[in-house]
Amino acid sequence: MNALGFGVIGVGEMGSCHAENLRHCIPGGRLVAVADVNADRAREVAARLSVVGCESTEALLARRDIDAVVISSPPKFHVSAIQAAAAAGKHIFCEKPLALTIEEADTALEAVGRAATFLQVGHMRRYDPAYAEAKKRITAGEIGRVVIFKSLGRDYESSPSTASQTPINGTLFHDSSSHDFDLARWLTDDEVIEVHAFSGALAMPETRQFNAFDSGVINLRFAGGAIGNVESFMHAQYGYDVRTEVVGTKGTLQIGYLQQTPLVALTRSQRSHDVLTHWLARFAEAYRREMSDFVSRVREGRPPAVSGRDGRQSVAIAMAAIESQRDGRVVRVRQ
Amino acid sequence: MNALGFGVIGVGEMGSCHAENLRHCIPGGRLVAVADVNADRAREVAARLSVVGCESTEALLARRDIDAVVISSPPKFHVSAIQAAAAAGKHIFCEKPLALTIEEADTALEAVGRAATFLQVGHMRRYDPAYAEAKKRITAGEIGRVVIFKSLGRDYESSPSTASQTPINGTLFHDSSSHDFDLARWLTDDEVIEVHAFSGALAMPETRQFNAFDSGVINLRFAGGAIGNVESFMHAQYGYDVRTEVVGTKGTLQIGYLQQTPLVALTRSQRSHDVLTHWLARFAEAYRREMSDFVSRVREGRPPAVSGRDGRQSVAIAMAAIESQRDGRVVRVRQ
Amino acid sequence: MNALGFGVIGVGEMGSCHAENLRHCIPGGRLVAVADVNADRAREVAARLSVVGCESTEALLARRDIDAVVISSPPKFHVSAIQAAAAAGKHIFCEKPLALTIEEADTALEAVGRAATFLQVGHMRRYDPAYAEAKKRITAGEIGRVVIFKSLGRDYESSPSTASQTPINGTLFHDSSSHDFDLARWLTDDEVIEVHAFSGALAMPETRQFNAFDSGVINLRFAGGAIGNVESFMHAQYGYDVRTEVVGTKGTLQIGYLQQTPLVALTRSQRSHDVLTHWLARFAEAYRREMSDFVSRVREGRPPAVSGRDGRQSVAIAMAAIESQRDGRVVRVRQ
Amino acid sequence: MNALGFGVIGVGEMGSCHAENLRHCIPGGRLVAVADVNADRAREVAARLSVVGCESTEALLARRDIDAVVISSPPKFHVSAIQAAAAAGKHIFCEKPLALTIEEADTALEAVGRAATFLQVGHMRRYDPAYAEAKKRITAGEIGRVVIFKSLGRDYESSPSTASQTPINGTLFHDSSSHDFDLARWLTDDEVIEVHAFSGALAMPETRQFNAFDSGVINLRFAGGAIGNVESFMHAQYGYDVRTEVVGTKGTLQIGYLQQTPLVALTRSQRSHDVLTHWLARFAEAYRREMSDFVSRVREGRPPAVSGRDGRQSVAIAMAAIESQRDGRVVRVRQ
Repeated sequence: MNALGFGVIGVGEMGSCHAENLRHCIPGGRLVAVADVNADRAREVAARLSVVGCESTEALLARRDIDAVVISSPPKFHVSAIQAAAAAGKHIFCEKPLALTIEEADTALEAVGRAATFLQVGHMRRYDPAYAEAKKRITAGEIGRVVIFKSLGRDYESSPSTASQTPINGTLFHDSSSHDFDLARWLTDDEVIEVHAFSGALAMPETRQFNAFDSGVINLRFAGGAIGNVESFMHAQYGYDVRTEVVGTKGTLQIGYLQQTPLVALTRSQRSHDVLTHWLARFAEAYRREMSDFVSRVREGRPPAVSGRDGRQSVAIAMAAIESQRDGRVVRVRQ
Repeated sequence: MNALGFGVIGVGEMGSCHAENLRHCIPGGRLVAVADVNADRAREVAARLSVVGCESTEALLARRDIDAVVISSPPKFHVSAIQAAAAAGKHIFCEKPLALTIEEADTALEAVGRAATFLQVGHMRRYDPAYAEAKKRITAGEIGRVVIFKSLGRDYESSPSTASQTPINGTLFHDSSSHDFDLARWLTDDEVIEVHAFSGALAMPETRQFNAFDSGVINLRFAGGAIGNVESFMHAQYGYDVRTEVVGTKGTLQIGYLQQTPLVALTRSQRSHDVLTHWLARFAEAYRREMSDFVSRVREGRPPAVSGRDGRQSVAIAMAAIESQRDGRVVRVRQ
Repeated sequence: MNALGFGVIGVGEMGSCHAENLRHCIPGGRLVAVADVNADRAREVAARLSVVGCESTEALLARRDIDAVVISSPPKFHVSAIQAAAAAGKHIFCEKPLALTIEEADTALEAVGRAATFLQVGHMRRYDPAYAEAKKRITAGEIGRVVIFKSLGRDYESSPSTASQTPINGTLFHDSSSHDFDLARWLTDDEVIEVHAFSGALAMPETRQFNAFDSGVINLRFAGGAIGNVESFMHAQYGYDVRTEVVGTKGTLQIGYLQQTPLVALTRSQRSHDVLTHWLARFAEAYRREMSDFVSRVREGRPPAVSGRDGRQSVAIAMAAIESQRDGRVVRVRQ
Repeated sequence: MNALGFGVIGVGEMGSCHAENLRHCIPGGRLVAVADVNADRAREVAARLSVVGCESTEALLARRDIDAVVISSPPKFHVSAIQAAAAAGKHIFCEKPLALTIEEADTALEAVGRAATFLQVGHMRRYDPAYAEAKKRITAGEIGRVVIFKSLGRDYESSPSTASQTPINGTLFHDSSSHDFDLARWLTDDEVIEVHAFSGALAMPETRQFNAFDSGVINLRFAGGAIGNVESFMHAQYGYDVRTEVVGTKGTLQIGYLQQTPLVALTRSQRSHDVLTHWLARFAEAYRREMSDFVSRVREGRPPAVSGRDGRQSVAIAMAAIESQRDGRVVRVRQ
């Protein structure tokens, strides 16, 4: 079987990572071309990886040697890219969040449905070895029935200028919490039906002008009765910190750590080690496994690991949380 | 200066611990007598500690050689015990929660105010060396401005019969979360003004008959803008687990651990150690420091470390959380 | 049965700890008197604990209300104190090391044997909950047959003046390594038959004048074939660090940790916590359990938990290690 | 500049890893061919990586498009492979141990010296991020002057048949301890001048027939006065465990961990996580960095990071340790 030809739409930090993986180490995948609204960036990445740099998404989608696309442009542009890719008959890997609103998400899913192409959403944590093992153990009953789901994500040192991108990248709940919302549904095999959120522009008050918030706590209620909480923070000065805990009737599973190298220093009355500061360092393996699995599924005609509906529900929970923090009340999640 | 004569009212697990500490290792304190509605228990503890076993609270309060009382009866009876002790001119150490309702708490505070005696509430975590050090560092500015407060308390293996005591012991939010509510106010030096809670009788569904819940997540909003979340769980099968984290603009402090002995076993593909299962093992030192400090404050005429108002606000937050989980809406905390 | 009357001979840091425990919290034990060559110190401790301060060991031993003595004078004086106490018919708890030489140890054991009194040696680590649990698990076969024994002890910030006391306190191998030698024999239930040691006055070169060394590594060979290594260091600037590991054919057990409070701070790119700096903080519980058990054994006529022979073999291994590091060769341990 | 053409001699587990890295992810390196005494294996690896499978080392060395070779055949054959490669004018990366004896090592170094080609020895731990960071910090003076060097390496579940390969692979001290000997010299920037070793065929007694031992403890003395100990064990049932500690006058650095995924499970009275079991998982990154650096050094004419002399001294220390454990005495290391 021929390798799956790939185009990457949007080669910022995330898209470059996918492009490099597809160029070097994804069996069955072959990077053909990249495109970016920033033409210089597209050229630079294309040159570095010795592939074609396309002038536009259209040019990229027109290529016959491209079977599948990775959409890693800003979330605001996901829906139009999905529509175009689906219309061009391409298989689609779309970064999370799938869209900025449920309406956009539904529009995207319809386009894919009409075209009958393959869509997988980039909730890569499902591919992290620790999260994957946790899922396996929960399914096997090791911790009994899930009672409480906890998760937190703290980004390292975001800048106010990041917050100014809220209109095209979405809020903290789109960008960061949506990972936890997906984990909540996946690890519990249940649906989140109700949320309450408090939020604030607490670490970077100057970002209020962009209608942005940098901190949030979101209570969750699941259809099956379980409850939970997600915390998201945009500006941890100490590192990149992602932790999840699933408490069951028989025990609890904790996922997450903060140590980058196995080196510990003990000096005058203190024991210390370094911390992780970059999400790519934490999830490098997950990104590789995710893309390998995407290729396998497309080639073998198996369904996506993270479906369009999964991506849509992360957005739905985020929308409910946004409404809750704005209106100061509990909000039901659209199913 | 003579040692402070002590009577302990209620010598269940908690009261016995205070009685033993006062008998053996609290400088400046001298255990004189104990009382309990269960007369056999009073006699047994009195005999074991070679002190007087009183037939009633009244008999205990009537003794001239008693300067101060420890109230560790069930919370429903705190208010009447405080009233009687205040009327008898005794200094009062009252276990948490101060009361089951704000109304009871206010009644108790008025009685103490009228009698002008000393009242301290038993939020002993403030005396735990780790929490005390955290407070010191936060005050010193080590983590900058507090942004997010997180805390969880999971009790080891509560039984449904414990839940049946809800009418006299209060709910999970009185018994367990009130510790976290006190930490929230103390560590942030701020007031909790609004809460939202989800809860459930998830691990022990049979306790719904007692109107009890064994699990809760409570979102907090502080007057100064910070946000937070408290999780409480009554039935952790794996141990007694108390953890708090205070996230600031410059870093974060984590308090809590789960290892009882410094022994680690590595056997076929697993590294493991034991866990704490009892709150007395976790906070033994805090209980001793708390009582020593109470004695010092009374003898030196200094104000209480945990005031009646502090005790009342833990109850106020608990009441708001109870209302929130019942009515499904955000509730303001009475100040 | 009456409480066992106790005298403590030598009330430096260690003896004071035993005296305080016996005064307050050893069931069945009753502190009667203390003695010290430093008469002021004896008076001060006696006053603080409200017991008799004796002018001399002889005066203490002459008291009829003293049934047992704790010998915590400098090791050079252990043998004469044991001889006198045995002659006076007292039961004896002697701090480690039992003696500075095998000859002295044998002299002491003979005196005890003649007087038929009870002698236990203060290798208190056997009473530490973690070490006790490790022993239980090894005996139960959890790690299979023991193959390698590793142990290290690093004292916090010893001073050159401590080293100047080598003639009366013994070397690093008497003072520190003897703990590990006792653990080696006890945890493996085997005898150390051969040793090789390198040593040096590496951290405090100025102590060479006292013929002292502050660092040592000691290879061990056991009668049953197992091998091992002990490391001792007198001058760790970062804390008090004691760790042991027993490797078996089925797994390994690690004992030891360095964290004093369960508080972790994460600030700009570093995760840190405090460390233990004092041996009393690490082994407080072990000292209490040790003395309680000594009292029980004496009163119940059971044999000592750490026999004179055990104490003697720790000295024998230390002597062999001293000879080895001096002569640069492997030395057999006298059995 | 053209990519450096590579041939890999010996494609067992280690050689395959190097070959795969050179095929996929070493910038400036290009895998051309592989050879193995096992022709089937050579063919299989060559096919998998789409490179040439050579029938013999000679055939591989005869190729003009090969500039450098990786020698990862069994250690007994290193010296002849080095001689042949040097004679063919190839640059050489030779796996550790450089040779089985000092004589062989010297023969190899002479051949390289005569041919004036480049030789680097595969002590890859120097490229592990944690070890590299430790080296940097020690050099910067963070822990003061080095006093004690400790290191241990425990292989996961070696089989007796591995031990039967002692004549061609060398002893435990060649295969495993040589890593620690190299770290000892490198991290302390000092020479090991004297050793004492105890050893035994303790976990796999049946391997005594091959004159093999599976356990060893080796005391070290350094020229500058520092002392140390290395422990090596061939048959840890619990995982692959590599740890090093460098104790200095101001603090200590610990390198090593045993957790593979950041997942912790707490179930009934136990907290546990998985362990590493394979050296490739632990040092995957080090192997990639090592080979990248080798390529850079060759291309830029810089000296090797791990010189022939470094490789020779690891062998020299191993030889001294072997002599010591055999003869029961301290042995000086040939410099």
